[in-house]
Amino acid sequence: MPRVSQDQLAARRHEILAAARDCFARFGYEGATVRRLEDATGLSRGAIFHHFRDKESLFLAVAEDDAANMVETVARNGLVQVMRDLLAKAGEAKAGGDTAGWLGTQLEVSRRLRTDPQFAKRWAERSAAIADATRERLQRQREAGVLRDDVPVEVLTQFLELAYDGLVLHLATGRPPGELSRVLDVVEEAVRRG
Amino acid sequence: MPRVSQDQLAARRHEILAAARDCFARFGYEGATVRRLEDATGLSRGAIFHHFRDKESLFLAVAEDDAANMVETVARNGLVQVMRDLLAKAGEAKAGGDTAGWLGTQLEVSRRLRTDPQFAKRWAERSAAIADATRERLQRQREAGVLRDDVPVEVLTQFLELAYDGLVLHLATGRPPGELSRVLDVVEEAVRRG
Repeated sequence: MPRVSQDQLAARRHEILAAARDCFARFGYEGATVRRLEDATGLSRGAIFHHFRDKESLFLAVAEDDAANMVETVARNGLVQVMRDLLAKAGEAKAGGDTAGWLGTQLEVSRRLRTDPQFAKRWAERSAAIADATRERLQRQREAGVLRDDVPVEVLTQFLELAYDGLVLHLATGRPPGELSRVLDVVEEAVRRG
Repeated sequence: MPRVSQDQLAARRHEILAAARDCFARFGYEGATVRRLEDATGLSRGAIFHHFRDKESLFLAVAEDDAANMVETVARNGLVQVMRDLLAKAGEAKAGGDTAGWLGTQLEVSRRLRTDPQFAKRWAERSAAIADATRERLQRQREAGVLRDDVPVEVLTQFLELAYDGLVLHLATGRPPGELSRVLDVVEEAVRRG
């Protein structure tokens, strides 16, 4: 029996995550049955759960993967840029593709936060990482003198998070983008030095 | 058999709506079975569906009732005040009461918008009414000279809606209020004349 390399394992894991993301977004957590996860990934349940302990772990891995990507982008380009990218991708993707899957996951996370205290606890540290990256970037901007200085960085951090949550809810529910691009200009301007 | 007055009918209808709101928020649309709706209202299914054709109609009535109340408050006090009230009530209510129920309904509406195109269509006109009330109030403020005049009213309307959606998602997922009161100051200031 040939040995599977670390690269192959990582690639397989990545494939499962992408297919599972799509499946969770489309059917919700409960609706994404093991049968549907098999269909989506093209793998047997044995193969899937070789990589992830159970469905709960698989869902968390999808959400954590999304959160990790986001932390990286926030640190590099800021939360407003994350919002602009999201808006642009939602425009391209319409009712399909990675962005739709990703938005669906976000809402599914929100729903489970509300109905599953155990999940809420595990999730709390992930969402803290995004807030931390946002706060650190704003702090650097304040030191560089480009941020308004009459409002604490913590308040501005939470202001940007509020806008981000609003954008996710708007796009995930399939509403048209309307003037959101100009709305994001207003958001960005509200944290900048006047 | 005594005749039931219009007032009694309206009161009964109101009771059913309040209990159903709580039930939908707690169990979600699918989880709010007819049995649970009977338990929540203390009425038989026959009595419930004398007032509302079916579960779908009952859910829509709950959501429409919420939307109608909101339109009224927006016209009178503006969307920022609606947000401040919501934040204050969420602080009082914690994990119970009308506000928790109301927030749950909002998220449940969001979920169904994503998964049920038929529902999305019926809902579109309700959410338009809230946007209209916001837009009209901002227009009056612009005429009174208290609104910033370098950004179209439509963009400011959508900016406030974005903040509102963000607040709903934040509170409905049970996250702590943090600095949201001061965040709403930033939101309000962003639409005001500088």
